[in-house]
Amino acid sequence: MGQRRRVVVVGGGFGGLACVRELRGAACDVTLIDKKNHHVFQPLLYQVATAALSPANIAAPIRKIVSSQRNCSVVLGEVTGVDVGLRTVTAGGRVYPYDYLVLACGARHAYFGHDGWEAWAPGLKTIEDALEIRRRILLAFEAAELADDPGVRRAELTFVIVGGGPTGVELAGAIAEIAAKSIPRDFRRVDTRTARVVLVQSGDRVLEEYPEALSVRARRDLEALGVHVRTGTRATEVDRHGVTLLVRETGRHERLDARCVIWAAGVRASPLGAQLGAEVDRAGRVRVGADLSIEGHPEVFVIGDQMACADSATGRDVPGVAQGAIQSGAFVGKTIRAELAAQARGGAVPVRGVFRYRDLGSMATIGRARAVAAIGNRRFAGFIAWVLWSAVHVLALIGFRSKVMAMLEWAWLYLFWSRGARLITGEEAGDL
Amino acid sequence: MGQRRRVVVVGGGFGGLACVRELRGAACDVTLIDKKNHHVFQPLLYQVATAALSPANIAAPIRKIVSSQRNCSVVLGEVTGVDVGLRTVTAGGRVYPYDYLVLACGARHAYFGHDGWEAWAPGLKTIEDALEIRRRILLAFEAAELADDPGVRRAELTFVIVGGGPTGVELAGAIAEIAAKSIPRDFRRVDTRTARVVLVQSGDRVLEEYPEALSVRARRDLEALGVHVRTGTRATEVDRHGVTLLVRETGRHERLDARCVIWAAGVRASPLGAQLGAEVDRAGRVRVGADLSIEGHPEVFVIGDQMACADSATGRDVPGVAQGAIQSGAFVGKTIRAELAAQARGGAVPVRGVFRYRDLGSMATIGRARAVAAIGNRRFAGFIAWVLWSAVHVLALIGFRSKVMAMLEWAWLYLFWSRGARLITGEEAGDL
Repeated sequence: MGQRRRVVVVGGGFGGLACVRELRGAACDVTLIDKKNHHVFQPLLYQVATAALSPANIAAPIRKIVSSQRNCSVVLGEVTGVDVGLRTVTAGGRVYPYDYLVLACGARHAYFGHDGWEAWAPGLKTIEDALEIRRRILLAFEAAELADDPGVRRAELTFVIVGGGPTGVELAGAIAEIAAKSIPRDFRRVDTRTARVVLVQSGDRVLEEYPEALSVRARRDLEALGVHVRTGTRATEVDRHGVTLLVRETGRHERLDARCVIWAAGVRASPLGAQLGAEVDRAGRVRVGADLSIEGHPEVFVIGDQMACADSATGRDVPGVAQGAIQSGAFVGKTIRAELAAQARGGAVPVRGVFRYRDLGSMATIGRARAVAAIGNRRFAGFIAWVLWSAVHVLALIGFRSKVMAMLEWAWLYLFWSRGARLITGEEAGDL
Repeated sequence: MGQRRRVVVVGGGFGGLACVRELRGAACDVTLIDKKNHHVFQPLLYQVATAALSPANIAAPIRKIVSSQRNCSVVLGEVTGVDVGLRTVTAGGRVYPYDYLVLACGARHAYFGHDGWEAWAPGLKTIEDALEIRRRILLAFEAAELADDPGVRRAELTFVIVGGGPTGVELAGAIAEIAAKSIPRDFRRVDTRTARVVLVQSGDRVLEEYPEALSVRARRDLEALGVHVRTGTRATEVDRHGVTLLVRETGRHERLDARCVIWAAGVRASPLGAQLGAEVDRAGRVRVGADLSIEGHPEVFVIGDQMACADSATGRDVPGVAQGAIQSGAFVGKTIRAELAAQARGGAVPVRGVFRYRDLGSMATIGRARAVAAIGNRRFAGFIAWVLWSAVHVLALIGFRSKVMAMLEWAWLYLFWSRGARLITGEEAGDL
């Protein structure tokens, strides 16, 4: 009997975990490497950013998640190198040899060449990002309460969200609700209900990937919450004092003074992909074949937000959403498992299947008790969509414990508009 | 009718909030200034540090707490100056005049002149402190899992808590439980049950302020959890690699290699007290009279951990505990209220009362379902003391909401040993 095969999975997000799970009980040693100790349930990150949930409600230690899978070890460390020739990965100064490598490193937000904007318009990908955004939102109201100059106060109470996808829509709705419902009674000098929330979207409609009827409904619901939805508009400058917008229809620039700007427009895949020697697209994603491996290296797979994979049915790239990550991860896990089993039997290695992405639908919440959802050919909006959204997300949250806690937090928020996590942490509030 | 009187309260801890509450409905404008936006329920901070609770479980926005008290405004800002001559306070560059000033700034941990130790042995006073300690505890286990050298591994698995008061005892018990119960199954290479938790106490017994029988019981319970209790021992050096201890009995020095050292020995009051021109003791506390005002300035009060006040009954200083803060805050609030009422009536200002500290008892938990408590002349230990402890702390948590959530987190921890907040946040784990 030969040495046990080694499978190295980089990244403990949806994709990496789905892959690891398929290898449960397989005759291999799985090493799961992540630079964080926790898996984050990213679709709910905006709720941490808007003070509805605590980080621990939507995150769980990766070790704990795979605790009972005895063939899997977890390594906390940042992968700095991949050598597809030597078949090794380097993380935290240690070298991990592999027989199979699965890269599931995900993506960060991207600024289309304006990296300097990040300081003034943070994006939302990690727990740290969410806490920083929460801090900025809450500090803006605090600064407005202290401001004597009406112009300054106006800028403090202006929130700009760049990007009208699901994250942008959800953030805009939640911030509008905070200002209008959660906190007005807590301030004495400022009327937080006068806050202005602006959602900037370069395309013609919000939620562009969704059916058009849902975009229309989402816009209407956002506007009912007081959100200024600016479609056909893009940011051409972001600085300490606000954003400059270019309105496509008029070709005119417009300036918005705003203390709090949040970036929800565009992502860029992990730079690790560039080390593979495979083709990488403009967004840094690694081009993979129908079996999700890279050209010339059938033992190297790239999945989730990090892969660029033409959907075999539509020809369009598989979208960078949780479902794409889970499905691609599970597909690769099954592929590896089948090959290991064949080798163990001494049989022929099976021909690899073709990855098919199955669109299970899309959903986005727009504030309390409102959402839009597209599932198959069916469309839902309003309260029923929100109930659907809640059910799906509660069920999907990793671990029974998180489910119960998050559900209770939501019940509280629903009943009392009370946000349980209104904490400004980190640096002292010295810049007020 | 003259101008409304202005009361400025600095600090939204137990003392400041108790004072503000007594002024509800009084004919004055209260300004509550704090450099954090949240009140922290400090007795439970160690549970955040040991990953049992999330920050939001034990903290609440100060604005929210005083939301319904219409004569109170909250200012987020750090007080940088007090001028008792001009009767003004400066915070965040703004000047706040006062007719009454109440300083309730609390204390930070102190290193007896070795401030450089803080980098290697953080103390526990704020949410940020708690998250940093949690990070270090969890990272130590991660590093141990990766370590190849047995000596390094031993150091990674050695936790030293300096200071055997309630905080030290509670931290030591909780860390021992994490290592023995919560996480062993999550690690593959290292047996976390071999972790060594050392509690260093310079005096002859832990919980020195408690009745001796409880100290004995606490020690026994800690030892049953595997904690090494080192009384009569003090730290003479703390550095990157561990601590040097001096054992009083033998006069010998001893070296302990440890990655994670936590400081729970000694506090120092806020430096703001020194600006008052009043007498300040060795720990930075401001000496106050029987009415808790400073000499020559009956309009300036100092309360809670920041005051040095001889108890009128025992002659000993009122201890720096939550009860001392609450009682002194309420006392000062009542004094101010009575004087304002007398002025409004045009009557004589009433003679001030004498503050009397009422010892309501002491409690400390030692791990799951174990505690010690002294209430009046009664002593409790073990499970019954733990039930008492839980009841008192749950009832005392600010806000009904936090109570329910914390109770549920505890129920979970009690039933499943599962810690809900095992997240390493902040800096990347690059130093592993």
